[in-house]
Amino acid sequence: MVVNRVAVTDAADPRLSDYVALRDTSLRRSLESERGLFIAEGEKVIRRAIEAGHRPRSFLLAERWIGGLSDLIERHPGAPVYVVTEALAEQVTGFHVHRGALASLHRAEPTPMADLLGLGRLVVAEDIVDHTNVGAIIRNAAGLGWDGVLLAPRAADPLYRRSVKVSMGTVFSLPWARVDDWATAIPTLQGAGFTVVALALTADAVSLDHYAAGARPDKLAVVVGTEGDGLSRRWVEQADAVVQIPMQHGVDSLNVAAATAVACWALR
Amino acid sequence: MVVNRVAVTDAADPRLSDYVALRDTSLRRSLESERGLFIAEGEKVIRRAIEAGHRPRSFLLAERWIGGLSDLIERHPGAPVYVVTEALAEQVTGFHVHRGALASLHRAEPTPMADLLGLGRLVVAEDIVDHTNVGAIIRNAAGLGWDGVLLAPRAADPLYRRSVKVSMGTVFSLPWARVDDWATAIPTLQGAGFTVVALALTADAVSLDHYAAGARPDKLAVVVGTEGDGLSRRWVEQADAVVQIPMQHGVDSLNVAAATAVACWALR
Repeated sequence: MVVNRVAVTDAADPRLSDYVALRDTSLRRSLESERGLFIAEGEKVIRRAIEAGHRPRSFLLAERWIGGLSDLIERHPGAPVYVVTEALAEQVTGFHVHRGALASLHRAEPTPMADLLGLGRLVVAEDIVDHTNVGAIIRNAAGLGWDGVLLAPRAADPLYRRSVKVSMGTVFSLPWARVDDWATAIPTLQGAGFTVVALALTADAVSLDHYAAGARPDKLAVVVGTEGDGLSRRWVEQADAVVQIPMQHGVDSLNVAAATAVACWALR
Repeated sequence: MVVNRVAVTDAADPRLSDYVALRDTSLRRSLESERGLFIAEGEKVIRRAIEAGHRPRSFLLAERWIGGLSDLIERHPGAPVYVVTEALAEQVTGFHVHRGALASLHRAEPTPMADLLGLGRLVVAEDIVDHTNVGAIIRNAAGLGWDGVLLAPRAADPLYRRSVKVSMGTVFSLPWARVDDWATAIPTLQGAGFTVVALALTADAVSLDHYAAGARPDKLAVVVGTEGDGLSRRWVEQADAVVQIPMQHGVDSLNVAAATAVACWALR
């Protein structure tokens, strides 16, 4: 086996700089977008990320994890394998790396929105800035058999470590894309034959029961927004229907990922 | 206004010991159970906690938050009001207290399981040890109009700060209780007239669609377990039916709170 193995013993070694401070969200956000990379954690996730077309820049792992990844390592001889102790990995990343292996990957070319317009059932997320929610929405859409997820420009990054983890790796299997333009996203969907249903708590929203009982369009896009502010007025006004999940016990709303699960189930 | 106001300037002051290290889960778990207390954060949550019958032990707040809580403070003259700077609050609790006010409350007598047996629709959570999931399950059950939540002995504490927060305060409005005994919980429910449906991925589970399309029992308990190990064999075997949410795109399962939302919607 040919391994481009590099033993590293200094946490400040610049070759490890892709992996620094993985818990510092704002630092990571700028570092990852600047370098066009993201981090995958654990053998299974690293494998799925590479299979999904993301090329490894490097691996960071303790000696005993090399075996499980040897086929991937061999197929990517250009990616150095930084072999470190678990203590050093913790020092660099700022947390205990439970799953023992990390990889830094080049982000593949993003999927264009146009590639999703031929599908039948899409979830469209407006400004969901929380990585946990974006990951959970993608997991729910995938698990419940929807075909893809579109994200508004300000929605959180599905390839951020936390999103990947919460999504259970579904960010690597379910097609997702950014909308080209916030202002024209809904008309573009409608032009491609989608009926667009906004999930929102407006006064004139029809209940999800009622909507689900009616005719089921061939192509359906369900649009969800942040919990606090909800969807933008423009997207609500552009939608073909506004639907709400009736709430009881004085509860304002469900968490957006739970609401997405309910809507994906009711409108599957 | 009579305020039992105590200015505190030393983070090590033992009078603040109810509030130490709020982010240290294992320390807090033992401290809170030993003292029979829990912590509420933010005016709205503190208010709901007190209205739900939990008596304040003390308040910890910055000067400017006294006004909003003055009626509660006046009604509980026995509870000292520790007035601190925001920096000191952060030093004691270990995090920046966004909502400005904390209260330490005596836990009210727990609701007995028997009190929930007269209700119609219950969610029963087995060993959900994650506070986020317990909070989310209670929020979902409440929002979707279910009547209460039963928790197995090992399920996480709904009054833990993280659970309260994720539940959006619904832990103070939706009835919940611990089961008396893990071994007899399911037969007890059945004896009280409940049809017990276990949500599990066993080979012979019927799909949720199929189950939901059938006759709807008057009294229904939906039982959910951890994501990894699922429900215990005993609970699955004791249940009247085993139901699964059909999964697609190679996804193993939904997160337990999302699965609960879907089940509560489908079986409402």
